[in-house]
Amino acid sequence: MRAARFHGPGDIRIDDVPEPQAGPGQVQVAVDWCGICGTDLHEYLEGPIFIPPKGSPHPITGAEVPVVMGHEFAGVVSAVGAGVTGVREGDRVAVEPYWVCGECAACVAGRYNVCRKLGFVGLAGDQGGFAEKCVVDERWVHPLGDLPTDIGALVEPLAVGHHAVRLSGLREGGTAAVFGTGPIGLVTIAALRAAGAGTVVAVEPAAARKAKAAQAGAHHVLDPTTTAVPDAIRDLTGGAGVDIAFECAGVDAVLAAAIGSVRPGGTVVNVAIWGHVPQVAMNDLVLSEVTVVGSLAYCGDHPDTIALLRDGKVDAEQFITGRIGLESLVDGGFRELIDNKEENVKILVSPKEIAS
Amino acid sequence: MRAARFHGPGDIRIDDVPEPQAGPGQVQVAVDWCGICGTDLHEYLEGPIFIPPKGSPHPITGAEVPVVMGHEFAGVVSAVGAGVTGVREGDRVAVEPYWVCGECAACVAGRYNVCRKLGFVGLAGDQGGFAEKCVVDERWVHPLGDLPTDIGALVEPLAVGHHAVRLSGLREGGTAAVFGTGPIGLVTIAALRAAGAGTVVAVEPAAARKAKAAQAGAHHVLDPTTTAVPDAIRDLTGGAGVDIAFECAGVDAVLAAAIGSVRPGGTVVNVAIWGHVPQVAMNDLVLSEVTVVGSLAYCGDHPDTIALLRDGKVDAEQFITGRIGLESLVDGGFRELIDNKEENVKILVSPKEIAS
Repeated sequence: MRAARFHGPGDIRIDDVPEPQAGPGQVQVAVDWCGICGTDLHEYLEGPIFIPPKGSPHPITGAEVPVVMGHEFAGVVSAVGAGVTGVREGDRVAVEPYWVCGECAACVAGRYNVCRKLGFVGLAGDQGGFAEKCVVDERWVHPLGDLPTDIGALVEPLAVGHHAVRLSGLREGGTAAVFGTGPIGLVTIAALRAAGAGTVVAVEPAAARKAKAAQAGAHHVLDPTTTAVPDAIRDLTGGAGVDIAFECAGVDAVLAAAIGSVRPGGTVVNVAIWGHVPQVAMNDLVLSEVTVVGSLAYCGDHPDTIALLRDGKVDAEQFITGRIGLESLVDGGFRELIDNKEENVKILVSPKEIAS
Repeated sequence: MRAARFHGPGDIRIDDVPEPQAGPGQVQVAVDWCGICGTDLHEYLEGPIFIPPKGSPHPITGAEVPVVMGHEFAGVVSAVGAGVTGVREGDRVAVEPYWVCGECAACVAGRYNVCRKLGFVGLAGDQGGFAEKCVVDERWVHPLGDLPTDIGALVEPLAVGHHAVRLSGLREGGTAAVFGTGPIGLVTIAALRAAGAGTVVAVEPAAARKAKAAQAGAHHVLDPTTTAVPDAIRDLTGGAGVDIAFECAGVDAVLAAAIGSVRPGGTVVNVAIWGHVPQVAMNDLVLSEVTVVGSLAYCGDHPDTIALLRDGKVDAEQFITGRIGLESLVDGGFRELIDNKEENVKILVSPKEIAS
């Protein structure tokens, strides 16, 4: 079968690889759609980052470069291994793309998303969504019911937003600000509205993204290049500041603005992965007793996220800005996202023949 | 009456000033004992920091240099103004040393310790504990009952530890590490034990302080100059890391070690005030979904803190390492604390004639 594999920075190839077979307790999924993530772009440009380099096999999968890419995917169950009872052939499913050790303190505590050996399907081994077929343990497949699989491919990024909102402790009617409205900022806005946030303020300098933030549900969109953001957010919230701010940019000044924009005792959720060790105004944290909490991916968020989509609480269609076949992955996908970063949100890739 | 006032860095004088009178709703306290705080030392060495400099009057008190110092104090009510009903002449009381605006978002939300205009009695105006008498609004005096006033002078620093432990969300039997065991680290250890922490690990390089940490109640004392602290803490906690870590040092590497020492989903309470903007390993926060929360002073913690002392849950006597009269404040107090930092915890100052 065909699978897109990372061989090195700038070197992603459509390879012919053996079709994976479902062992006991496993499910084989015929992939319909797989979204391209910012993480994939980082790997393409500067990797291997999360991908295990040659000579450093992943502690769970034992794999190293080349690995199959793609972790935002959904498809149809094409085979089940012995003992699988939760899904059957023909079911539409989204995949929660993890390999976890099951033994570390995080796994034992049920926080498997921060497993000390965590690996992502599509980054850490021989399975991924930029391939015709993918095999995972049953626990990682989540039935989509009647939802189509293109929407199913958006469950993964939306689960990131759902998880961040859940960790934030937002209450019904609460106020929130989202700093940076790339794909993760946008799904966080959508998740906030679905969770009943009363006021959502987006902070974003790029014109195309500002429009998307409003479409995703932001009540106010502030441009940090022309607005003193913490002051403006206090004006929008009766002088107090928002209950929760989400840092989705990974920029020192943005984190500082997020800390400065929450109310006394408010919470900043750090969703961004950082490319450097930032300077953080800890005294601002202390003098307003602000909480900063790190949020990583998702953990038990897929069922609720699928329910939000099924119930129409999130319109995921708006986030799909392109559809391509697997052969176009690099030029029509990665290069397009790099060249037209602000116009795109999610480009979906189909490994099926029809889309090639 | 006599009062120690800050006139500039290195320039603290025992001045003769008018005795303050209790207006309506106010209480005049004859100060028995007032502790010297690290904040006082910083002001003496490098101030004005919290003290309003000449030409920049404090927004609530309107005061500027010179100001009366001393904020860790207790004494006996010597007069009450009209309408005061909660205390009467002769009552022993500890003072919660705040001036707050009562109008900002923090005050309205009951988090008056992060009032945007917050001023400390003993730093921001013409009242303080290094003086024979002090006048404050009734809300700020807390009856000590039978507790002696030397112990009463320790209510303030102990309330800092009580507040930090309360914010931490520690559960009965939970595990905690305290990084830095100067006075605030020590009272945090005591507050942790009083709150029922199951395991308390202190991290401290200085020999004299290590002994004090054990005396204050730490079950384990680690020396970061000879021990890989996060690994050692995981070994002491079944591989997981502590539930809560307290940063009481204000040092980048210490904050990093604190973040690295908590369990997945654990909490770091930042108690230190920072002299610079530190670098913070935000990715470590994200990859273990750690929470960092700032803790400032106290807010509603005095009654419970007094109860802990009254019930014998904290032995405060151990923290008193010296007693001097007001005239000795600089040489016997500030200079002694600077020259013999590690041997001292609290030096209590009496403005009364007998101790001069």
